[in-house]
Amino acid sequence: MKISGKHLLCTQDWTLEELVKILELAEDMKRERWSEKYARVLERKTFFMFFYNPSVRTRQSFECAATELGGHAQFLEPKSMRLKTARSAGETVEDAAKVMSRYACGLGIRILEDKIPAYGEGQRLLEEYARWAEIPVVSMAHDKFHPFQGLADMLGLWQHFGREQVAGKKLLQVWGHGALARSWCSVQESLLIGSRFGMDVTLAYPEGYDLDPQVIEQVKKNCRLNGRSFEISHDPVECYDGADVVYSRNWMHPAAYHDGEFHKAEEIERSLKHQEWICDEEKMKRTRQALFTHPMPIDRGHEVTDAVASSERSIIYDVAENRLHVQKAVMAMTMGGLEA
Amino acid sequence: MKISGKHLLCTQDWTLEELVKILELAEDMKRERWSEKYARVLERKTFFMFFYNPSVRTRQSFECAATELGGHAQFLEPKSMRLKTARSAGETVEDAAKVMSRYACGLGIRILEDKIPAYGEGQRLLEEYARWAEIPVVSMAHDKFHPFQGLADMLGLWQHFGREQVAGKKLLQVWGHGALARSWCSVQESLLIGSRFGMDVTLAYPEGYDLDPQVIEQVKKNCRLNGRSFEISHDPVECYDGADVVYSRNWMHPAAYHDGEFHKAEEIERSLKHQEWICDEEKMKRTRQALFTHPMPIDRGHEVTDAVASSERSIIYDVAENRLHVQKAVMAMTMGGLEA
Amino acid sequence: MKISGKHLLCTQDWTLEELVKILELAEDMKRERWSEKYARVLERKTFFMFFYNPSVRTRQSFECAATELGGHAQFLEPKSMRLKTARSAGETVEDAAKVMSRYACGLGIRILEDKIPAYGEGQRLLEEYARWAEIPVVSMAHDKFHPFQGLADMLGLWQHFGREQVAGKKLLQVWGHGALARSWCSVQESLLIGSRFGMDVTLAYPEGYDLDPQVIEQVKKNCRLNGRSFEISHDPVECYDGADVVYSRNWMHPAAYHDGEFHKAEEIERSLKHQEWICDEEKMKRTRQALFTHPMPIDRGHEVTDAVASSERSIIYDVAENRLHVQKAVMAMTMGGLEA
Repeated sequence: MKISGKHLLCTQDWTLEELVKILELAEDMKRERWSEKYARVLERKTFFMFFYNPSVRTRQSFECAATELGGHAQFLEPKSMRLKTARSAGETVEDAAKVMSRYACGLGIRILEDKIPAYGEGQRLLEEYARWAEIPVVSMAHDKFHPFQGLADMLGLWQHFGREQVAGKKLLQVWGHGALARSWCSVQESLLIGSRFGMDVTLAYPEGYDLDPQVIEQVKKNCRLNGRSFEISHDPVECYDGADVVYSRNWMHPAAYHDGEFHKAEEIERSLKHQEWICDEEKMKRTRQALFTHPMPIDRGHEVTDAVASSERSIIYDVAENRLHVQKAVMAMTMGGLEA
Repeated sequence: MKISGKHLLCTQDWTLEELVKILELAEDMKRERWSEKYARVLERKTFFMFFYNPSVRTRQSFECAATELGGHAQFLEPKSMRLKTARSAGETVEDAAKVMSRYACGLGIRILEDKIPAYGEGQRLLEEYARWAEIPVVSMAHDKFHPFQGLADMLGLWQHFGREQVAGKKLLQVWGHGALARSWCSVQESLLIGSRFGMDVTLAYPEGYDLDPQVIEQVKKNCRLNGRSFEISHDPVECYDGADVVYSRNWMHPAAYHDGEFHKAEEIERSLKHQEWICDEEKMKRTRQALFTHPMPIDRGHEVTDAVASSERSIIYDVAENRLHVQKAVMAMTMGGLEA
Repeated sequence: MKISGKHLLCTQDWTLEELVKILELAEDMKRERWSEKYARVLERKTFFMFFYNPSVRTRQSFECAATELGGHAQFLEPKSMRLKTARSAGETVEDAAKVMSRYACGLGIRILEDKIPAYGEGQRLLEEYARWAEIPVVSMAHDKFHPFQGLADMLGLWQHFGREQVAGKKLLQVWGHGALARSWCSVQESLLIGSRFGMDVTLAYPEGYDLDPQVIEQVKKNCRLNGRSFEISHDPVECYDGADVVYSRNWMHPAAYHDGEFHKAEEIERSLKHQEWICDEEKMKRTRQALFTHPMPIDRGHEVTDAVASSERSIIYDVAENRLHVQKAVMAMTMGGLEA
């Protein structure tokens, strides 16, 4: 299996076998966190982190990941860089990517909805970097996908259900109202990786909050290939019936983009009308004692109640920790030459 | 002595024995700075630095400290983070602290007067982080205290007087006029640690510039327990009589806060009227050849004249260097598991 | 040869023998990039990077350089620091430099035209830091010079011509129109180091775009000492005749500064009128199959056409990579105690 040098923009781009290899390595890296086993994988190597958007978790966990592998992550904010844009002179992505390939062992990019004029532009930017870079380009969350979040989610399910028990479990991916107007990336990645690993999937949201149709087609196809079900529900209560995992998260309406930009305030106003879309203890009673998960940061009181987020069935902190382990695993295999 | 895992918001929260242990270790770390002795104490570990306020010295010295112990300090600015505030949705301190505890070995926080609506709010924030974090939380200066500055000050006195000679020396903590409207934190910490280590204390300032009454009560108590004197003076000249250490520093008037915010311009205007409050050579002649100290950066020409700040009795650069050594010592013992 | 502790503000300040030693070491560091040979030269040491101006390449390459030598570079932006300025209270350069000398092994400073009121002020600031610092101060590009770019350029010529073949080659340093209003630093450094290493030099630009007269005097003197020619041309086409190296780059007009500041928009407008000043394939045909070089980022379509910048004779990516190697070499010898 040749993972060295691979880009990672979406888990769907990798084979199931490759994803399993990453998760197994992440499990071992968690066990061996402070041993010498992986201490020199990125020794003296540099990982560039390009944050078009700020981030709590992602920055912390990627920079820790590089440090724990013996390397260093550089925190770079393109707003302070002279990259060429449609409106201003500057460097082309080709030049930037080729030079960075001389310095670094890998490049992570984060770009979300408010930094782009239309859905899909973030994906396009990452693809252009990937085209020119001679080093792996990985998504640290972009408008379409969030591969490391998907991997961290799945590792959480392995840990709490047991690796062999994930297939056949029912994942409820449910919309939550909220005041943060969130991207589709974590949710779409969750649907893809969950369906890939053999889960039954229910996607629930208020009428109109449709996700990317191409992604949904892929999720359906994944379910079909595994002989699993895929359902869409617009009922904020009944959708919980029989779920094994509840993943409640806000996402924006497709109409949040118009006239060439992202309308955040408008989106928040629209979202806050749907107060029935919150994950609470009453609804959780309809499930099969489902685990609660979320990529964090949580908008408590909107997406989910405190009681559920802080309950014994909540695996949010474990999943957050998993970000570190899966990122180390991918970096080690794609950038550090580690073999499985 | 169990220092591992302890928070450090103020030196007063620690026993005298613990503080002595830290200062002894700092001395050894200075001697052994480039030897292998402490080279792996934080190997591959991450220390998070939360700068609500910018800083010269503190950022440089903490990041160096982590590096010299074999670890890495992440420079984080919460303004670019989506933390929950009274006015906006976002993450709770509980969630932020619990996740950070999965990634890092320690968390430093700096928050000063202009980032908070009232004196005491910085302390409250640090206490909330300390409540939820499973890793040590340390103050990198907040509105009330500045424990590492206090330790660096005391280490400077050990170095210049000899460790056994500090008790019984007279500390003059004197207000200086200035154009920077400074926090109470360094000054209050100096009074606490000086009185703790058996110094006689004179606190001098223009009428009205009272510090936190609770802190002053604690300083008096420290002096009483050691059988030492505590005096308050409003005379900018006579207060120098018999001092062994002069620490001249601006601090803000209690009235600098009103209507829910910090009024900097107003405070500077008020301060600059008191031009007689400057440490100069004439006044230094009244002392017992006192050492001059200051936490830096110095507002030369306001708090102190160039002649005194750059004199042979000035220990400002040594004290600044000590920041590094005491920070390494505390990090090593609280976060790195080093035992005394 | 005693390079340890030396400042580097311009290659002209160093002997030719010292520069050769650096280039030889850089070549070896390129060959031995991932071996253990230089892995501990800056172990646990800190290099401070002061960016008054943002930067792509410089920040990336210096931070990588420190990492690859086993050390750490701190990214510091003085805008967020309380340094004393003419208009505001704050710390003096003396105090800042003396304290930084206690923490770090070296200090890099970048300050370009738009952060200073007049040409020469950047040089003055660096000289003041160098005066007070007890550690090496190096220029990461300032208004007058860019020593590491000059070293990277020369290393590129060694690599592509062979070390012994550089003397006697003809360097065309030619102005390009552009939308970025660039500093004189890279260009002046190129002229100095090229003439120093025995190249014939042609400097070509539209009437009025004169560089610093003192620097040009030094370039002429360098050429004279080597028995080489120095010519100035104002013909955008004929200047290419017989060139072995073409270095096309925009620089600002001396009139870009007036009334105490840098007028960028005005400068760009003036520059864009000179559309004939672009390096293209037609002009390159007049040369002796010249190499094309540029310090990047390139303003493609203004300074040079895509066809030339991406041609087989373009050495831009190699020169960009060389930044890393020459920076490592200088840091190792000035800050790390490495001996030749």
